[in-house]
Amino acid sequence: MEIKENERIDDLEYKGLKIIQRQDGFCFGIDSVLLSDFAKNIKKESIVVDLGTGTGILPILLSAKTQAKKIYGIEIQKDMAEMAQRSVLLNHLENKIEIIPQNIKEITIEKASVDVIVTNPPYKKGETGLKNENISKRIARHEIYANLEDFIQISFQLLKDKGEFYMVHRPERLVDILYELRKNKMEPKKLRFVHSHVGEEPKLILIKAVKNAKPFLSIEKPLYVYTEQGKYTKEILEIYHKNK
Amino acid sequence: MEIKENERIDDLEYKGLKIIQRQDGFCFGIDSVLLSDFAKNIKKESIVVDLGTGTGILPILLSAKTQAKKIYGIEIQKDMAEMAQRSVLLNHLENKIEIIPQNIKEITIEKASVDVIVTNPPYKKGETGLKNENISKRIARHEIYANLEDFIQISFQLLKDKGEFYMVHRPERLVDILYELRKNKMEPKKLRFVHSHVGEEPKLILIKAVKNAKPFLSIEKPLYVYTEQGKYTKEILEIYHKNK
Repeated sequence: MEIKENERIDDLEYKGLKIIQRQDGFCFGIDSVLLSDFAKNIKKESIVVDLGTGTGILPILLSAKTQAKKIYGIEIQKDMAEMAQRSVLLNHLENKIEIIPQNIKEITIEKASVDVIVTNPPYKKGETGLKNENISKRIARHEIYANLEDFIQISFQLLKDKGEFYMVHRPERLVDILYELRKNKMEPKKLRFVHSHVGEEPKLILIKAVKNAKPFLSIEKPLYVYTEQGKYTKEILEIYHKNK
Repeated sequence: MEIKENERIDDLEYKGLKIIQRQDGFCFGIDSVLLSDFAKNIKKESIVVDLGTGTGILPILLSAKTQAKKIYGIEIQKDMAEMAQRSVLLNHLENKIEIIPQNIKEITIEKASVDVIVTNPPYKKGETGLKNENISKRIARHEIYANLEDFIQISFQLLKDKGEFYMVHRPERLVDILYELRKNKMEPKKLRFVHSHVGEEPKLILIKAVKNAKPFLSIEKPLYVYTEQGKYTKEILEIYHKNK
């Protein structure tokens, strides 16, 4: 497998999986890994769609953590989608994962045909935030081509009745998220806060919603990333499959 | 001060304050104490309304913790309101606190005249929950006479522009709360989760909303009630003014 200049192959240290990333581009982070863990109980034979797949990290991790039948990764950035496709080939996952270079607003997957949506969408409202990022990072981080409501409305359209939606996002968007989910008949069912350390404000949120479900939210125990000694907690080591 | 049969006088152990409670009725709990602390930065000379005051615990605590000008406690249960009024007299707070026996839906306080609303409303939806409670407890705990949306809509009407709303509630109602607040132009600005112990799911939420404010939610660091050794944490002792 050839890689391009400015790319590197990273070892995911899990079941031999690897991923191609760009040195100067948007690299996957802990949020994708935590989301893949949060969504790992996806039912056998599910049809899964990752909205805004970036490097393809979520489809690749979910292919190993679940028994999903097919995982589609939708990515608006053509060069990013092409790189994700090469990561799929690198891992011999072309029968399980399909990368589609598309704006999620023009998605061609059949409506009401999907069991599970996963998404790590741009976190920042509109054009707010750092402007000195390169364009690839800006599209991944800012709501330039699609905003939170687009992601939720498109998920509603794609999902079957009672289909599941898993998202990672930032705590300061919690009101936007819960409001738009309920407004669009995607009922929030499970919420988990991720804290760097005990006693600190949360840094990330993991949320599960279900299309057309009845209201009842369960807030799970918090997920702490670091111990007091600055090491990864037992749970994080387990999520990274490094707890032997 | 005489008390009735089946009543007792409890010492609040703070600035000599006392409160009358019924042995078989709804007694105030840690939620009211935490809410009084969460709302303690109320501005000097504020007009404050407590919707559903019960024993009058919130007005009595806030009269000592803040420099509010006037605090109204609204209570639908006539005998409860009468008992709260006797607690006001017992503490010589009749110039600062006024207890009004009213259904909040028929409140006579002038619209757009209030700086701050505090409320510890019934937590449970409609008639769900234990049915073997006495009627006084049921009214305090279940949304029988007014539901969450009533509390929020009435607060919007009473508050001045940019007036503040402080509420304590249960985590499983978080979606209802954030959705109804935003829908009714009461923007959630501050959220704090209360956990019994580190590593457990939250038991209570404290929320601040501001009428007609711009969206931006800040989630504060968690409040833990007990240490690993089963004692009150330092922060809880401070809130109870027992940290000397």
